[in-house]
Amino acid sequence: MQLLKDRIRKDGKVKEGNVLKVDSFLNHQMDVKLFREIGKEFQRRFAGEEITKILTIEASGIGIACIAAEVFDVPVVFAKKTQTKNIAGDVYTTKVESFTHGRIYDIIVAKEFLGKGDKVLLIDDFLANGKALEGLVQLVEDSGAELVGAGIVVEKGFQPGGDMLRKRTHLESLAIVESMNEKTGEIVFRGDE
Amino acid sequence: MQLLKDRIRKDGKVKEGNVLKVDSFLNHQMDVKLFREIGKEFQRRFAGEEITKILTIEASGIGIACIAAEVFDVPVVFAKKTQTKNIAGDVYTTKVESFTHGRIYDIIVAKEFLGKGDKVLLIDDFLANGKALEGLVQLVEDSGAELVGAGIVVEKGFQPGGDMLRKRTHLESLAIVESMNEKTGEIVFRGDE
Repeated sequence: MQLLKDRIRKDGKVKEGNVLKVDSFLNHQMDVKLFREIGKEFQRRFAGEEITKILTIEASGIGIACIAAEVFDVPVVFAKKTQTKNIAGDVYTTKVESFTHGRIYDIIVAKEFLGKGDKVLLIDDFLANGKALEGLVQLVEDSGAELVGAGIVVEKGFQPGGDMLRKRTHLESLAIVESMNEKTGEIVFRGDE
Repeated sequence: MQLLKDRIRKDGKVKEGNVLKVDSFLNHQMDVKLFREIGKEFQRRFAGEEITKILTIEASGIGIACIAAEVFDVPVVFAKKTQTKNIAGDVYTTKVESFTHGRIYDIIVAKEFLGKGDKVLLIDDFLANGKALEGLVQLVEDSGAELVGAGIVVEKGFQPGGDMLRKRTHLESLAIVESMNEKTGEIVFRGDE
């Protein structure tokens, strides 16, 4: 998606350790006009697929998921992250390992909001190691819902999440970063080499 | 807002301990069509005010804030909750006490996304004790931005947050729950007695 790649080149910041900061428009401050264009692009890429629900995970996926949901005309469910010990029996739950925060947490979705008959599109802002997305796939499978695909805004193509997720579902990443140079700030996207 | 009150009466669940569950349409599963109507109602109630930015807090405020931001045609910033010990100097931060989770956490906003010249509307899904909103007000004041008001979807009128916030800014709550009966499920809204 050219508009997105241009925006990442303009406002993204390449930091030490292969970190790409896009918090001025994507995941701290949020440009909802861009989100609307992102929603339309997801709709174009999943045209012909029947989708009845969007599933995302808190927190930074929620804004994009909600605006995409308006375009798709479906409700959103967001999985909650929790470290609560006592999970009631009325939720689907799985464990997710966070590399960023160096810990394992549980994600949960109430059973009443995901189940047989739902045709689910996953939406998230970032895909790197893919542990959160793998957790969402697991919740969908546990619920008996049908996984239609996953729409990602920015994929770090040099980390393993994309390859993992492509084996499990129809993945559409709107910008795939192939490499970044923290000294020059240069960003190379897949397809642009 | 009648549409919202009707929806709370239809799909809200009154639980022990004055808990109102609205997670089928507001803060777990999210009805984005309702969010659009909520955004329009906030626009109506803050008509004539100049607003340049919406500030919310993760996680459940983000979806409503993003769709309202489309209506207002402004960007959103969401404050992040963190228990990280090392907060860099480039953020505004304050402490918030959570009654629900029985702990104190820090909320942060990067300085580059909030400051002098911003005219800020706070948006959140729930107002009860008001500690999170009080924290957001503090961040706005620390940043030198101007606080225009606060738009809340559901206020629990029998808890102290609303009175506190009304003293500090122009508060608009779209549904104010005056009392709830966990045995009958009856919900009384302010103005409907």
